[in-house]
Amino acid sequence: MHAPDFLEHKPLDPDSIQPQFLFPLNWTRSLLDRGTHPLHSPPSAFQPPLCLLFEVPDHQVAGHQAGHGHPGPLIDDSGRFYKPLQDDDRGAIEAAFYSSFSSNTRVPDRIRRFFPVFYGTKLLEASDGSGQWPHLVLEDVVSGLSHPSVMDVKIGSRTWYPEASEDYIQRCFMKDRKTSSLCLGFRISGLQLYVSEESGLWKPERKLVQHLSADEVRVVLKKFVSSNSPIDPNLNPDCSFASSVYGGSSGILAQLLELKSWFEDQTIYHLNSCSVLMVYDKKKELKGESSDAKVKLIDFAHVTEGNGIIDHNFVGGLCSLIKFISDILTSPDECTTKACLQNSDNNNEEILTGQKIHSIIAVHVIMLFQVMGRKIICLKRKERAWKEMPMATPELVT
Amino acid sequence: MHAPDFLEHKPLDPDSIQPQFLFPLNWTRSLLDRGTHPLHSPPSAFQPPLCLLFEVPDHQVAGHQAGHGHPGPLIDDSGRFYKPLQDDDRGAIEAAFYSSFSSNTRVPDRIRRFFPVFYGTKLLEASDGSGQWPHLVLEDVVSGLSHPSVMDVKIGSRTWYPEASEDYIQRCFMKDRKTSSLCLGFRISGLQLYVSEESGLWKPERKLVQHLSADEVRVVLKKFVSSNSPIDPNLNPDCSFASSVYGGSSGILAQLLELKSWFEDQTIYHLNSCSVLMVYDKKKELKGESSDAKVKLIDFAHVTEGNGIIDHNFVGGLCSLIKFISDILTSPDECTTKACLQNSDNNNEEILTGQKIHSIIAVHVIMLFQVMGRKIICLKRKERAWKEMPMATPELVT
Repeated sequence: MHAPDFLEHKPLDPDSIQPQFLFPLNWTRSLLDRGTHPLHSPPSAFQPPLCLLFEVPDHQVAGHQAGHGHPGPLIDDSGRFYKPLQDDDRGAIEAAFYSSFSSNTRVPDRIRRFFPVFYGTKLLEASDGSGQWPHLVLEDVVSGLSHPSVMDVKIGSRTWYPEASEDYIQRCFMKDRKTSSLCLGFRISGLQLYVSEESGLWKPERKLVQHLSADEVRVVLKKFVSSNSPIDPNLNPDCSFASSVYGGSSGILAQLLELKSWFEDQTIYHLNSCSVLMVYDKKKELKGESSDAKVKLIDFAHVTEGNGIIDHNFVGGLCSLIKFISDILTSPDECTTKACLQNSDNNNEEILTGQKIHSIIAVHVIMLFQVMGRKIICLKRKERAWKEMPMATPELVT
Repeated sequence: MHAPDFLEHKPLDPDSIQPQFLFPLNWTRSLLDRGTHPLHSPPSAFQPPLCLLFEVPDHQVAGHQAGHGHPGPLIDDSGRFYKPLQDDDRGAIEAAFYSSFSSNTRVPDRIRRFFPVFYGTKLLEASDGSGQWPHLVLEDVVSGLSHPSVMDVKIGSRTWYPEASEDYIQRCFMKDRKTSSLCLGFRISGLQLYVSEESGLWKPERKLVQHLSADEVRVVLKKFVSSNSPIDPNLNPDCSFASSVYGGSSGILAQLLELKSWFEDQTIYHLNSCSVLMVYDKKKELKGESSDAKVKLIDFAHVTEGNGIIDHNFVGGLCSLIKFISDILTSPDECTTKACLQNSDNNNEEILTGQKIHSIIAVHVIMLFQVMGRKIICLKRKERAWKEMPMATPELVT
């Protein structure tokens, strides 16, 4: 693919930008070419504390994780998130995007807050022990939240873009059709919900949440803001926190609408394959405290230039997500369908809860899916069959 | 593909709808199966005058025209447009859509006005003389306009839909990528501009207008509301009528925004491959009279059910068109690039003007495209090259 023009920019004028955004782009390119270029620290104004303790984050719900020859992200205790640059164009594009975006005076402050703060890049020992690796240094968006509930929603019915390679286009094209993206205009890429002190976090397998139907997505979006257990099939999501997390003048819906108004007008960037991250602290909600629900955009490895055209693919998908959330606020009791989150390949579910209920749940999930196998496959293949079948499809029997 | 549910509806309850919308849908199906079912008049309340004079419309800019075994549309002098039903699922779907939409009480009146009034169906002698053929009887949206300027804009970066056949999907997928659809979120499907009494109408070849770049579309949208000649390469579009046609509380932009607000919320229909028709009477504008600029949605042969999801593909494309028009209103002088409307296959242009300038224009077009051949092909293949080349690419020398 053609590199977007913002990759070709000359080093930024240090007088025109804030020091922490000083980041010459040609340097990024050499960093990526690890075989031939010496690795050295970036001339960034960002100076981390001397004795930082890096660790693997607990709350990553989607995106590239450690394994298969590339390292995973790290966090420190000062609220920073270290994302290893991907070792092809994607890494260069994402670094260039952050640099361009950070210094772009056409981006209003009301919009800038929806993007992680960018502190530059840094060479760090990779999380997989493979040696020094360049990392983007970003704001850790869940820092400070003791029990974050997090949902990663990849926006757009299309995750590819005209300038991409034919091979990439075909792969994305097939995946968009197989997952929820094509039908819904977005897909849930990953998810974790705080359940309780005893049960810990509920983190359905990513492969499952990517393939949900409209009804299932509706249920998951309700579970995200409910006080009762997301894993009890006999409980309908009570949507207790819908008004405080999704609603209100500073809730998630208001933030998404603010973003939408900008995307209807901005023609600078096309955020292909980018995600909206929705985050709040359920434990605070349970205590009656403000949970500081927030929206952040993440994953910019496929950003292209807008060239005077709005990102209509992003706008359409965002509007669809907004409609789902808006419906929950206006009619929280509608649609009592329960989400299945089934996996037709291995009929399994990844539960990151506490100790006790692990094995009980696992056994019941397997039994349940064995019994329901045919029905579930039928549901997947013919979404219309939802209308003719009982909606109370239990997902887990505890 | 699965027929949408609205095709399976029982005949509409005559007490619940206005008489002119009475139209049992199962009858449509038998009409389409011309080989085995007797053709008869629909039991519609619509009764046309006894002595109607049918003629082929002058102002159709896109859509199926007569030829290749299917008849074209007809109009009469009472303001009605007769669209022959397509002889496969498409005809049945379009008839069913009009019937469903006409009687759907969830569609607000403020939105209903953007759709042609539907009067039922009627058997008529086909325009190609092939015998009796079922026609949709619709409002003729340019009736009453002596010199209509018309633009047909097919909305959506994707004209296919998940339920379609694989063959159809692949054909649309390729066409969306080759035309403006993928990049812009819409493509101009056809266009006619009134030039003057002497020159008549300017009607660029449809194949050309479908492939315009963003800059070219911007110019065409300016030409659409300009008083000076669209075919003189030395004239920049003056956008004289931008404020009265696009702007104002009842102008085209306001109408598109009204539509957008509905599409952000409605989950009844997905209007795949549907067009926005923009129409006004330039001659009235030249006289200083109101031109009654209007927006109509047309072409519903690929409508599917929304199933609780907004038509995010339509919303995205509509937002993109809105942005183009909005930019013209706020910055009419920006971007002086002239549209080429070139055809790399036959280097020709269809000009529906008066008598005198036909041959002169044709000769110059051919000469011009011969000279510019390489440059034009280059422009098509690498849109980015626009930035590096002189923008004043003349399209016609008169």
